[in-house]
Amino acid sequence: MTEAPYTLILLRHGESDWNQKNLFTGWVDVPLTEKGKAEGARAGQLLAENDLLPDVVHTSRMQRAIATANLALDVADRSWIDVKRSWRLNERHYGALQGKNKKETLDEFGEEQFMLWRRSYDTPPPPLDDADEFSQVSDPRYQNLFEALPRTECLKDVVVRMLPYWFDSIVPDLLLGRTVLVTAHGNSLRALVKHLDDISDADITGLNIPTGIPLLYQLDAELKPLAASRYLDPEAAEAAIGQVANQGR
Amino acid sequence: MTEAPYTLILLRHGESDWNQKNLFTGWVDVPLTEKGKAEGARAGQLLAENDLLPDVVHTSRMQRAIATANLALDVADRSWIDVKRSWRLNERHYGALQGKNKKETLDEFGEEQFMLWRRSYDTPPPPLDDADEFSQVSDPRYQNLFEALPRTECLKDVVVRMLPYWFDSIVPDLLLGRTVLVTAHGNSLRALVKHLDDISDADITGLNIPTGIPLLYQLDAELKPLAASRYLDPEAAEAAIGQVANQGR
Repeated sequence: MTEAPYTLILLRHGESDWNQKNLFTGWVDVPLTEKGKAEGARAGQLLAENDLLPDVVHTSRMQRAIATANLALDVADRSWIDVKRSWRLNERHYGALQGKNKKETLDEFGEEQFMLWRRSYDTPPPPLDDADEFSQVSDPRYQNLFEALPRTECLKDVVVRMLPYWFDSIVPDLLLGRTVLVTAHGNSLRALVKHLDDISDADITGLNIPTGIPLLYQLDAELKPLAASRYLDPEAAEAAIGQVANQGR
Repeated sequence: MTEAPYTLILLRHGESDWNQKNLFTGWVDVPLTEKGKAEGARAGQLLAENDLLPDVVHTSRMQRAIATANLALDVADRSWIDVKRSWRLNERHYGALQGKNKKETLDEFGEEQFMLWRRSYDTPPPPLDDADEFSQVSDPRYQNLFEALPRTECLKDVVVRMLPYWFDSIVPDLLLGRTVLVTAHGNSLRALVKHLDDISDADITGLNIPTGIPLLYQLDAELKPLAASRYLDPEAAEAAIGQVANQGR
C-alpha cells in the first residue's frame, strides 16, 4: 500500500453513432463516430501533456469506451498498461427506450415523463423485452451475469451495481500507488462521481460529464478528494456540459 | 475446470516499421506499418469466419502485438474480452543488434556468425549497453523487472522466461474452457510452439511462424496437441514462411 495522494482519472467515451443520431443507447454496443475517435485521441494528448500517465485502465464491456481508451492510450504511448474490464462500468441500461429517438420520445411522452426517465434518480424506464432487437440476453459477453443482467436501470441502480467494482477492483489499484484511468459512460461515471464527491440524490440529477475530457481526482488516504476534481481542458468541458444538458431538444 | 479439448490460438503481430526497414527490432517498441494493420484486421476476419472467438487475449507489452490484437478483436467484435499482458511474451531481446540493419550485419559479420545469432538455439548476440539509445533500462513498462530485465537473449533464454507465463497465466485460462488468443512475436511464439509440439533444440531453429495468420491448437487434457496445429489460411502461411526464412538477404 502506497501513501496518498492517489491519482484517479475518469474519461467518458467520445461521440458514438447513436449520440450523433440522438437515440437512447444504454447497453446497445454502438461504435464511435469519427468525431468520437478524435475525442479519444485528444484525451490521450491531454493525459500526456499533463504528465498523467495511467498505469492501469479500467473499462466497461462496451466498444465505445474500449475504443476511446485504446485511442487515448495509443496517443499517450501507454497501450502496454494493464487492462481490466467489467460490465459494472457499463452505461445505464435504458430499458424499453433503447434504440428510441430522444426527440420522438420527448414528443410522445411529454417533458415531465421524459425528464423523469432521463434524470430522476430512482425512476427506471419500462423494462426492455427479452425478445427486443436491442436486448442483451443473448450477448455472449453477459452470459455469466445470470439474474444480475439488467432489463432497465435508473441511476440509483447503476450506483448499486457499480460500487462493488469500485471497492473490489479500482480501489486496490489506487492503493498500490498506480495512476488509474477509468474509461466508461455518462451514467456509470456520474454514479462514481456521486460517490466520490458525496453528492445528494437530488443534486446528482443536474450533473453532466462531457465526453472525451479527462477528469482528474487526487484522493486522500480515505479516498476522499483532496480538492475539487478538475477537467484537463476546463474551457472545453464547460462548453460541452451546456450541450449535454440540452440533448433531446 | 472444463474438459478437453482446449482451444488455443497463436497470432504473430503484423509487419512493423522495422520489419519493413529490415532492422533487428527485439525489444524496441516500433509501431505497425499500414500493411501490418491490415494483417491484424485480416486475422480478425479469419477468427470470425472460423467461428474461433477468443474469450481472453494474452499479449506482450509491445505495441506491435497489442495493436495487432486490438485490430483483430475489433473486426471479430470481441474487443470486450478480458486482456492480459506480460513482458514474458515479448520478442527475443536482440542485444547489441537492436536497431542494426540485417543486411549490413550479415555483410559485416559474415554468414556463419549472422546465422548463429539469428538461428542458433543458445548463442545470444553481445549484450546491449545500458547507455544505448535502444536500451530498455529506462522504459517505464519494465521498471518492475529489476535483475530480470534482459540485455540480450537467445531462443533458449526466451523459452526459460516465457514458460512461467504459460503455466501460471495461460494454462489456467485454458482449463476454464476459455478460447485463448496469444498475440506475440516470432520468437516468443516459437518458444511456445517448441514446448507444445515438443520440438528439439536443433529442429526449432528451422521453424518460422508467419505474421498475421492465426495458428490453431486443440489441446488434450494433458495440454498436448490432439492433432497437428493448423493455420487458418494455410496457403498464405506457406507462402509467408518461405519469405521469413530469407530475411536479411
